[in-house]
Amino acid sequence: MRVSELAESTGVPVHTLKFYLREGVLMAGRSTSRTRSEYGPEHVERVRLVRALVEQGGISVAGVRTIVAALDSPPPSRHELLGTAHLTLAGPEPAVAADTDSAPEVLALLEGLGWMVWADGPFLAEAARAVDAARAGGVALTAETLGRYAGAMRAVAEADLDVALAATSAAEALHTVVVGTVLVDPLLVALRRIAQEAVSAGRA
Amino acid sequence: MRVSELAESTGVPVHTLKFYLREGVLMAGRSTSRTRSEYGPEHVERVRLVRALVEQGGISVAGVRTIVAALDSPPPSRHELLGTAHLTLAGPEPAVAADTDSAPEVLALLEGLGWMVWADGPFLAEAARAVDAARAGGVALTAETLGRYAGAMRAVAEADLDVALAATSAAEALHTVVVGTVLVDPLLVALRRIAQEAVSAGRA
Repeated sequence: MRVSELAESTGVPVHTLKFYLREGVLMAGRSTSRTRSEYGPEHVERVRLVRALVEQGGISVAGVRTIVAALDSPPPSRHELLGTAHLTLAGPEPAVAADTDSAPEVLALLEGLGWMVWADGPFLAEAARAVDAARAGGVALTAETLGRYAGAMRAVAEADLDVALAATSAAEALHTVVVGTVLVDPLLVALRRIAQEAVSAGRA
Repeated sequence: MRVSELAESTGVPVHTLKFYLREGVLMAGRSTSRTRSEYGPEHVERVRLVRALVEQGGISVAGVRTIVAALDSPPPSRHELLGTAHLTLAGPEPAVAADTDSAPEVLALLEGLGWMVWADGPFLAEAARAVDAARAGGVALTAETLGRYAGAMRAVAEADLDVALAATSAAEALHTVVVGTVLVDPLLVALRRIAQEAVSAGRA
């Protein structure tokens, strides 16, 4: 199909598609003449992915470029898959635990729950930064509450990995972890609020 | 204390404090002369809250204004508390279920789990929009996986409401629900990624 047809079947305007091509988040079509290219179903799929990451995931175009570059060259073994996915998700300037107050506390708490935690990893730093911010904002976060949140997110992670393990290729598994993690975050946030209403109604 | 001391004890520059005053997210100090105002501990607390909401919560100053206005006039009864909190969190242009494909499916699934769900509420619409986006991005979300996510977020909501119910006043409970919901979201997102690593390491 031509670029106008790609625009039609994705609902994304031609000028936006040209922007995606220039930014390297959409791969070039097959040149059929000096001014024309031919696009296929893989382009439709990619445009939908880029759109979802930008609009729902709130990812910048530079962030999307990193994500699609990772998806285009999956690691040879599934063992390295989560590492690749998480390097991609942590972004070019990952958070640092030393910049936070509560990293040692969060680390001790998670290790106390039997988790193997990467102490220098970006996500422990992000968790600690969030704990710092919540406390600065006047929200008391006890060890008990933190532990309950951790237990719930472990259940989410179990579901995430079951889906990733059911993938038929490393490329598909990587796609599931990276894209599924980014795009399911807003779903979890919305479900949390719906659950607050349901639990509150149930207790009333 | 004077505005320069407020800046010192919060780490927020004077020009930012003046911006907060103009935008109505920081209440005025007590005038002591034509050009001077006196600030107290309630101002320190408020500046920390605004800072946390803007920097960690990613909330716009207009959004912060809505949140602090709600916190400044809590509802008279605790029954209305979650409603007030959620109206505040949904923002001025809440999502609409009819704009999504999967709202009926998500509603049926949650009702099947025994949840009382507000079918026209903004969060069901947000959940459905996230499901649409995840699927557009190539992530298969089965009913089983959605149900596991919902169960985990119900556990989060139980913890949220236990904290809110332990508050000693309606004002404090409202603060806990509104601010705790916004500022704990990034913590849950980070814990999800740490848990993915822990679960993956445990399975390897």
